[in-house]
Amino acid sequence: MSNKDISRLDKLSLSLEPTNEQMHNLISQSADLVINYLSNILEQKASNIPTNIDSELSAIRQPISENAMELEEILTLIKDQILKYSVNTAGGTYQAYIPGGGIFAAAVAEFIAAATNRYVGVWGIAPAGVEAEMVVIRWLCKIVNYPNKAKGIFTSGGSMANFSAIVTARRALLPENFLSGMIYTSDQVHQSIQKAALMAGFPPQNVRIIASDKEFRLNPDNLLTAIQQDKESGLTPFLIVGNVGTTNTGAVDPIDKLVEIAHKNNIWLHIDGAYGGFFILTERGKELFSAIEHADSITLDPHKGLFLPYGTGCLLVRDGEFLKRAHQVTASYLQDLDLAEEIINFNDYSPELTRSFRGLRLWLPLKLYGEASFREYLDEKLDLASYICDELRQIPNIEIVAEAQLSVVAFRYLPKSGDINQINRELLSKINATQKTFISSTVINGQVILRVAILCFRTHLEAVQATIQAIKIAISQIET
Amino acid sequence: MSNKDISRLDKLSLSLEPTNEQMHNLISQSADLVINYLSNILEQKASNIPTNIDSELSAIRQPISENAMELEEILTLIKDQILKYSVNTAGGTYQAYIPGGGIFAAAVAEFIAAATNRYVGVWGIAPAGVEAEMVVIRWLCKIVNYPNKAKGIFTSGGSMANFSAIVTARRALLPENFLSGMIYTSDQVHQSIQKAALMAGFPPQNVRIIASDKEFRLNPDNLLTAIQQDKESGLTPFLIVGNVGTTNTGAVDPIDKLVEIAHKNNIWLHIDGAYGGFFILTERGKELFSAIEHADSITLDPHKGLFLPYGTGCLLVRDGEFLKRAHQVTASYLQDLDLAEEIINFNDYSPELTRSFRGLRLWLPLKLYGEASFREYLDEKLDLASYICDELRQIPNIEIVAEAQLSVVAFRYLPKSGDINQINRELLSKINATQKTFISSTVINGQVILRVAILCFRTHLEAVQATIQAIKIAISQIET
Repeated sequence: MSNKDISRLDKLSLSLEPTNEQMHNLISQSADLVINYLSNILEQKASNIPTNIDSELSAIRQPISENAMELEEILTLIKDQILKYSVNTAGGTYQAYIPGGGIFAAAVAEFIAAATNRYVGVWGIAPAGVEAEMVVIRWLCKIVNYPNKAKGIFTSGGSMANFSAIVTARRALLPENFLSGMIYTSDQVHQSIQKAALMAGFPPQNVRIIASDKEFRLNPDNLLTAIQQDKESGLTPFLIVGNVGTTNTGAVDPIDKLVEIAHKNNIWLHIDGAYGGFFILTERGKELFSAIEHADSITLDPHKGLFLPYGTGCLLVRDGEFLKRAHQVTASYLQDLDLAEEIINFNDYSPELTRSFRGLRLWLPLKLYGEASFREYLDEKLDLASYICDELRQIPNIEIVAEAQLSVVAFRYLPKSGDINQINRELLSKINATQKTFISSTVINGQVILRVAILCFRTHLEAVQATIQAIKIAISQIET
Repeated sequence: MSNKDISRLDKLSLSLEPTNEQMHNLISQSADLVINYLSNILEQKASNIPTNIDSELSAIRQPISENAMELEEILTLIKDQILKYSVNTAGGTYQAYIPGGGIFAAAVAEFIAAATNRYVGVWGIAPAGVEAEMVVIRWLCKIVNYPNKAKGIFTSGGSMANFSAIVTARRALLPENFLSGMIYTSDQVHQSIQKAALMAGFPPQNVRIIASDKEFRLNPDNLLTAIQQDKESGLTPFLIVGNVGTTNTGAVDPIDKLVEIAHKNNIWLHIDGAYGGFFILTERGKELFSAIEHADSITLDPHKGLFLPYGTGCLLVRDGEFLKRAHQVTASYLQDLDLAEEIINFNDYSPELTRSFRGLRLWLPLKLYGEASFREYLDEKLDLASYICDELRQIPNIEIVAEAQLSVVAFRYLPKSGDINQINRELLSKINATQKTFISSTVINGQVILRVAILCFRTHLEAVQATIQAIKIAISQIET
């Protein structure tokens, strides 16, 4: 390399490395935008997707170009396009699907983690960062009453946690040719299980869908029958997936019975607690799913029940060795990183090699607010769902399809005449058209069912009363 | 629910919902910490993991408790434990494995995304947010010269992108019982391919490792022979994984030849460009891997070559329909979300259902700095690697094992006597013990090789000169 070439190396514009002042400006303008937005989030529309939305999006559709754009212009696009045109999933009015969180302290933790970019896949690279993640994993193991040998990983969400659980069970119990392996779950299962099974190599017919009972819980008798039939056909039952809170109705499967069946038949029991798992922090939850400690693995979604921003899932495995055996692969360029056996390299327990420092966004809020704050909010969500049931019961022609086992309530409107499904679809449109609430629907046994799901930390009594009010208004519109 | 119970609902402490003032305080104290830290990052030790590290970590190991902790105390733990005790992966001194990034603007974008918690899995929930992600995906497709029908997803990193690529190829080309399917890749392949294959259901022996040539590139003749032999044995070659920049030495496989072989044999060609893919933004990269546009899928890691924080990967698929067919599963509770066909629901293209708004952390910096800034930095990295080669060549007894094809240089020290591998291991220890640089080693054909990898955006001429200096000092220590 000639001297001329070397001198070129000194002439970099350093555009990607702002000065301290520029950094302060960047974060403070962004923080103003965010805090202004959050400060009146209760007044925001629950959803704002106009019918001519397509014509409104031309500014955001501008391609990436060779040249820089002004920060002000960028922040305006975020405010007036990205935040404006959307369902307000961060607001207390969001009571659809399974609401997420987004507590401010977690967003701050995420900022710190991203700007200081530590690599926590391997203990030897960031021991203190890994220890912070371990503190959270240990706490999660503690709240589900798992033994010391339990281990866990943070994932991008429930889907990937369920995926790693399926792979772990597959590798623990099945041979390399695993196509006789059968998975059992209720007809209320979350699609992530079917998707994860497919990714992990199981064709759809290897997932046996078991009819649930009247309260939408997996029926253990049906399960046992299916397992026995499959065994007789030469198939290999190896995995039961139970739900601690289904997405449709919040139903909690009879875990104690699933534990019994799994143990007797040498089947892995995975509990999908992505939605409901964190209710174990409350007395009511503890009572409902006390047997969860006997499950072989558990999915928890901190971006649901711990009110964190989207992108924070977790898988716990009762005997951590199985998690490691399923995921460990070695590589020559990682040779410098061999460490004492008791030390955790998350890489060895996860499908991911490089990932973000996810643990910080749990560790910081848990430290800052303490477990008690989260328990209080979760208790409130259970109370709110029970309040909704009471209120719906007083509305004429409303059928409660699923009482709140946790914080989801499913119902439908029974019209005097007409196509019930069609009318309930219209009702949903009218409820959400009030822009005071946003709820969703599902189909159970061919029936269109509306559902209110309470889990956003910003959903308090007022937001729930607004939903009841919107339902009443929509019904009156339908009835006139 | 009695009136007494309802009144309880009004008594929530709202501890998770700070006031505007508290939010400003939280982010500004955190920003001060981060900016102070970054402002002297060049003076930080390249690695700081004392031999008694275990005894230093008691503060960070304190468990989560019922009660809240002071913010100041938490930030002190981040500063004096998490950031202090680690390899400084955010610094320009980090030249090991494949360095990551962490540009400040991306961390700010991440903060905005997390605090406003938009759900971008489905267009109908956050159309403008999804459009911002689409803008980035379209730009990525443009830089690799993909046609309009191409589609892509953001992943948590290269491992998950490679995983989705393998599943996509599997589902495009193999029957449900896919165990005769064979995957081909060079002996320089990244472990994420082997791990991803395992996750996707392929036993280790289904990944055929092809010997590379003297420059560590996949040898097309060896590949062709292996494919033909496997076909004759009744196996089903279905996937070739080529590298655009191996982790070991930065080798670029002969993509044009791989394209030819793949096309002739009806095999899916996946290019793992996690490390090197973004060099296509430079003239040199464009020349080296112009044939990449004919690959069926490409992994890119914006948290490497676009200098973003860890947690940002990407998979592009030339014909997006295959990506969708591999990942789409439907669920009844998503029924409200059916949309026009041209609209993208990322859910349908990805193993994930709920994930963070990853696109914002690409979109914001790309808008703020423009493509040109990134190109300039990437060009600099190529220059720096070439500078390192020149400098190493002038050090006696250094053998350059792999010249810089991109921005990795591999070398070893040839001692006059003694165990070469052992001495090179010692040399590495001594180089890193200077705390002025942090590089890593690998093993190729039984030989311990040291490697310098230049990709951190903060690595400029000075940091590279420090590495050369550290190597010289370490050699002089070995030689005395």
